[in-house]
Amino acid sequence: MRPGKLLIAQGGGPTAVINQSLAGAVLEARRHGLIDRVYGARHGVRGIVNEDFVDLTQETASNLEAVADTPAAALGSTRDKPDRAYCQELLRVMRAHDIHGFLNIGGNDSSDTLRIVAEEAAATGYPLRCVHVPKTIDNDLMHNDHTPGFPSAARFVAQAFAGASLDNAALPGVYVGVVMGRHAGFLTAAAAAARQQGDDGPHVICLPERVFDLDAFLGAVRDVHARLGRCVVAVSEGIHDATGTPMVTQLAPAVERDAHGNVQLSGTGALADLLCEAIKTRLKIKRVRGDTFGYLQRSFLGCVSPVDRREAREVGEKAVQHAVWGVADGSVTIVRRGHYAVDFVVRPLADVAGLTRTMEDSYIASNGLDVTPAFLDYLRPLLGPDLPTVHRLRAPAVPRRTGTDTAPEA
Amino acid sequence: MRPGKLLIAQGGGPTAVINQSLAGAVLEARRHGLIDRVYGARHGVRGIVNEDFVDLTQETASNLEAVADTPAAALGSTRDKPDRAYCQELLRVMRAHDIHGFLNIGGNDSSDTLRIVAEEAAATGYPLRCVHVPKTIDNDLMHNDHTPGFPSAARFVAQAFAGASLDNAALPGVYVGVVMGRHAGFLTAAAAAARQQGDDGPHVICLPERVFDLDAFLGAVRDVHARLGRCVVAVSEGIHDATGTPMVTQLAPAVERDAHGNVQLSGTGALADLLCEAIKTRLKIKRVRGDTFGYLQRSFLGCVSPVDRREAREVGEKAVQHAVWGVADGSVTIVRRGHYAVDFVVRPLADVAGLTRTMEDSYIASNGLDVTPAFLDYLRPLLGPDLPTVHRLRAPAVPRRTGTDTAPEA
Repeated sequence: MRPGKLLIAQGGGPTAVINQSLAGAVLEARRHGLIDRVYGARHGVRGIVNEDFVDLTQETASNLEAVADTPAAALGSTRDKPDRAYCQELLRVMRAHDIHGFLNIGGNDSSDTLRIVAEEAAATGYPLRCVHVPKTIDNDLMHNDHTPGFPSAARFVAQAFAGASLDNAALPGVYVGVVMGRHAGFLTAAAAAARQQGDDGPHVICLPERVFDLDAFLGAVRDVHARLGRCVVAVSEGIHDATGTPMVTQLAPAVERDAHGNVQLSGTGALADLLCEAIKTRLKIKRVRGDTFGYLQRSFLGCVSPVDRREAREVGEKAVQHAVWGVADGSVTIVRRGHYAVDFVVRPLADVAGLTRTMEDSYIASNGLDVTPAFLDYLRPLLGPDLPTVHRLRAPAVPRRTGTDTAPEA
Repeated sequence: MRPGKLLIAQGGGPTAVINQSLAGAVLEARRHGLIDRVYGARHGVRGIVNEDFVDLTQETASNLEAVADTPAAALGSTRDKPDRAYCQELLRVMRAHDIHGFLNIGGNDSSDTLRIVAEEAAATGYPLRCVHVPKTIDNDLMHNDHTPGFPSAARFVAQAFAGASLDNAALPGVYVGVVMGRHAGFLTAAAAAARQQGDDGPHVICLPERVFDLDAFLGAVRDVHARLGRCVVAVSEGIHDATGTPMVTQLAPAVERDAHGNVQLSGTGALADLLCEAIKTRLKIKRVRGDTFGYLQRSFLGCVSPVDRREAREVGEKAVQHAVWGVADGSVTIVRRGHYAVDFVVRPLADVAGLTRTMEDSYIASNGLDVTPAFLDYLRPLLGPDLPTVHRLRAPAVPRRTGTDTAPEA
């Protein structure tokens, strides 16, 4: 990049480790004489048009480390999707501040924003090195083995289902847990890591990669319930019918849409309640409970994969190195080497921007209601070596001494 | 107790540390020659009438320790509420197995079950030492400074709201988190421990100890939103109108009741959705999101207060010591000494059984929509010294260089 200032923004949904990427980028940038100041935009691209910057060069290293360990987006985030006029305004402000490097930390939408900004800068001849820093709990960025934020959210989901499965075994019934993920089922699929023994839940997993068939779903729940007397279900919020219509809209027709045209799926318990009602009425099962994991899975304080923490830090560092030494704009991607190490490869923005990766077919069971061992093999190294485990009593049954095995009516 | 077998059961909702009490009791019981076997009843009192016992004397110490660190109820639980016929059946089975000590680990309902069993045993002249081991995330047992299970659940709620508050600051709007607690607001109130700085959430806290007034609630949310541009709300699932009718039933009239006559409040997102809808329509705020913490708050794997872990273990030990050396039935209670230590006092079952403690007035702010510093002073030692903290950037604002501060329409 041309000597000048580096600007960093955060976009989209917060994660447990997005501030690791911020800290990694800031600390790395401060090593380079080429970069005289590191600015942060408050609330993503909106902070740029509002000229709402903070001078991260003046942060202490100690506070940066403390912020790195704090979930959500320390600079604030945005759902704004810039059009051409918006981008011209961004560039006008960046030009006024001699900003020649721009890092946007985010997912599909944030990388697409960066692509538009980069194209606009090139069109107007303004020297601006644009680098995308990957982040999304959805794990849906192309060319990334996985994305920072996903491993920690996956760990939350796995720990939640491990607990929910034990709870369900203690007080049997059907439990439905709804997990974030509009188009990609990775996070929902991570529930499978909760299983240790053969009859541990989740027993049924519904992913947005497959058309949701209510009858097939109820059949699977009925079978598990008949066999075990209980059933734990992991459902993606993005499940949809054959026309692509989200199941949640079948309950709540007046849905909310964001600036990207996305239907609001999170922040409501409607889908879980819809499914629980279907299970109660159609299967005549009395105790049916639904949870919607909601914002906890992306921002819960204190559930971080150590692998995620380290990698999120590194993508921030690599993005700055690329801004300084690279010869073109790009997106930092995570490539897996062996089992398990990673490398970072910078790819053209267009390879990632606005595209959505979904789960590979090889990760989804043939009946469409479970994951495969290949997915678990993919997932497990991401969760970290310190994932808590669960244990059962192994005490033998005591022989009967009375002749009855029927309880009186309570 | 008379020499013979000790029977242990777990009742009511699982917690993160109920198995600590189980392990504490089993390991302690195995030290006493008076107790020739320690049996566990599968699924609480139902396991007794079903004569479904496991021999915990044959567990390895190592596995007991591993199970102790596992959430939920390792023996299984029940919501059965025994009547006289049920109790006669319990005693018939206990008599057949020479069981002369009975520990029931649970909350109000479980202690009441134990009271009935003890009365029935006394009436029939069967020697049975009954000891109640406290457990409930609701923290609503009389004469207990707090109850095992509550500190860990409170920690989950605090960590959840700390993250949700950061998320809400990153992407502003209104966030409503619904927390368990039918009559007692302690767990909802624990959300206040998420606050570190003056503008951290939760900004509004709704407790079942106060009549819920929708207008006053909306007024409080509107004020915070006007001041901060965002608002985080912690709501107890048990909030009710002046007649005592739960707010959730105003949305869903066909509610489910358990054997104790309790309306089903958990396992549905209805209350959060109801409140979010009211905020959206009445306050004209666009981004309103609701989460219902549901079963995660009582069974999430890997969120345990070290104080809770230790005390839950101890109440199990103390219960066995009382069964062996005590001269009457009783309930182990936790008494606070100073700031902070505890002692264990065994009280008559009738002092605890079936009674419900609610939050002291001194813990609730005068407007009824917050807690007091006295409550935080009470709560903080329970959460443990290792509660994660959050940190903010302190980078100074960058002076403007352009004349605009208005964003184009996106």
